[in-house]
Amino acid sequence: MKEKKFVEVCFTPQDYDYFKGRFEIVVVIDVLRATSAICSAFNNGVNSIIPVSTIEEALEYKQKGYLVGAERGGEIVPGFDFGNSPYSYMTPELKGKDVVLSTTNGTRAINIAKGAEKVVIGSLVNLQALIDWLLAQNKNVVCLCSGWKDNFNLEDTICGGAICEALLASGQYTSDDDSSVAAKYLYLSSMDNYMGFLKSSSHRRRLKRLNLNEDIKYCLTPNQMNVIPILHGNRIINS
Amino acid sequence: MKEKKFVEVCFTPQDYDYFKGRFEIVVVIDVLRATSAICSAFNNGVNSIIPVSTIEEALEYKQKGYLVGAERGGEIVPGFDFGNSPYSYMTPELKGKDVVLSTTNGTRAINIAKGAEKVVIGSLVNLQALIDWLLAQNKNVVCLCSGWKDNFNLEDTICGGAICEALLASGQYTSDDDSSVAAKYLYLSSMDNYMGFLKSSSHRRRLKRLNLNEDIKYCLTPNQMNVIPILHGNRIINS
Repeated sequence: MKEKKFVEVCFTPQDYDYFKGRFEIVVVIDVLRATSAICSAFNNGVNSIIPVSTIEEALEYKQKGYLVGAERGGEIVPGFDFGNSPYSYMTPELKGKDVVLSTTNGTRAINIAKGAEKVVIGSLVNLQALIDWLLAQNKNVVCLCSGWKDNFNLEDTICGGAICEALLASGQYTSDDDSSVAAKYLYLSSMDNYMGFLKSSSHRRRLKRLNLNEDIKYCLTPNQMNVIPILHGNRIINS
Repeated sequence: MKEKKFVEVCFTPQDYDYFKGRFEIVVVIDVLRATSAICSAFNNGVNSIIPVSTIEEALEYKQKGYLVGAERGGEIVPGFDFGNSPYSYMTPELKGKDVVLSTTNGTRAINIAKGAEKVVIGSLVNLQALIDWLLAQNKNVVCLCSGWKDNFNLEDTICGGAICEALLASGQYTSDDDSSVAAKYLYLSSMDNYMGFLKSSSHRRRLKRLNLNEDIKYCLTPNQMNVIPILHGNRIINS
């Protein structure tokens, strides 16, 4: 019998040390909103996205003439072109461009994952395409949830749980950690109604206060596109 | 309208910094098996339990003539009187005695929680008694799950979720963190069949390999006793 591959869910960047180095593929997830925005950008024909951790790095790119998105605490950082609303990445002027992005949690998680054989961008908007792609790779997979400032969040965990559930259901995969079992159950509890399930999510409340309900609805609508954004060196490109 | 108190669930000792100092009551939970064993000890009439973090401290107490339980990795540490099986704490010779205990995760969590106004021992075996006691206190509560070597575990989270759900249902409490919402849902998914739900739990598998299935059944059977073990200085006594 062929040996099964592992799929696990890591709740926060803080927890990543335990998983680091054991998985060929890291799926970075920041459903609200960085990885949803990245997927939307590629769906709109953006050429590449350069994720940077700090505002200082983002500013350097801006001074070189790049289009730069920067978000902290859910809001656009003053002086930048846009934040991390997926709708900002759907405009025609971004087609074919290289775009720089720095966000509170998502771009940090991407940079923490560097060093894995493959770092791929996951969200609900590209969920089924990503699952199909992962099954075709047949490698060990860890879903790295971006969380909120190193704390657990529901929406990233549910997305990781959806990936976990699909990979386990294929029979190619197994999982070993309680975090993966929990993520799978949270996905199964929420799959019929993400919006309802997440009404008590702290980040959803945070964004709702900022009048970002349209963004939330968009980010929680699964399978809108077939993009598979992958990190190559310091840039994310569509595979 | 009276302001509601908060109840939250902290998944691991590693996550505790975020919660520290904001809650008058910390409920320390290590379902498999430290906090279940502590409750059983008081139910059997033990006078006090002294939780120590290291084997060295445990040895010092042993040399002074104390009865000492020490467990690492699920097994009794050689040279000690017992480990953390609840059944070890039900023998007549322990009645009225002061017992020292050091375990892989649970006693460490107890020591991390020191500094809170009240540190209380939670498990499924004293669940309803604990919930009634907490409601009578009407203070802010954080459930500190011991986890497994700083990783998330299912059984402690489910116990925290059960406490969370009951306190929220009373109307006296609210919660703010996604970890608490997740714990509550995991409890609701598992409440009808803890054994079935936890069949995939990593720690249950670990203990099953050590032939500790009777211990697991015991620890997962809720509401067996009315003890409320509370930390006073360096000792736990029954309130």
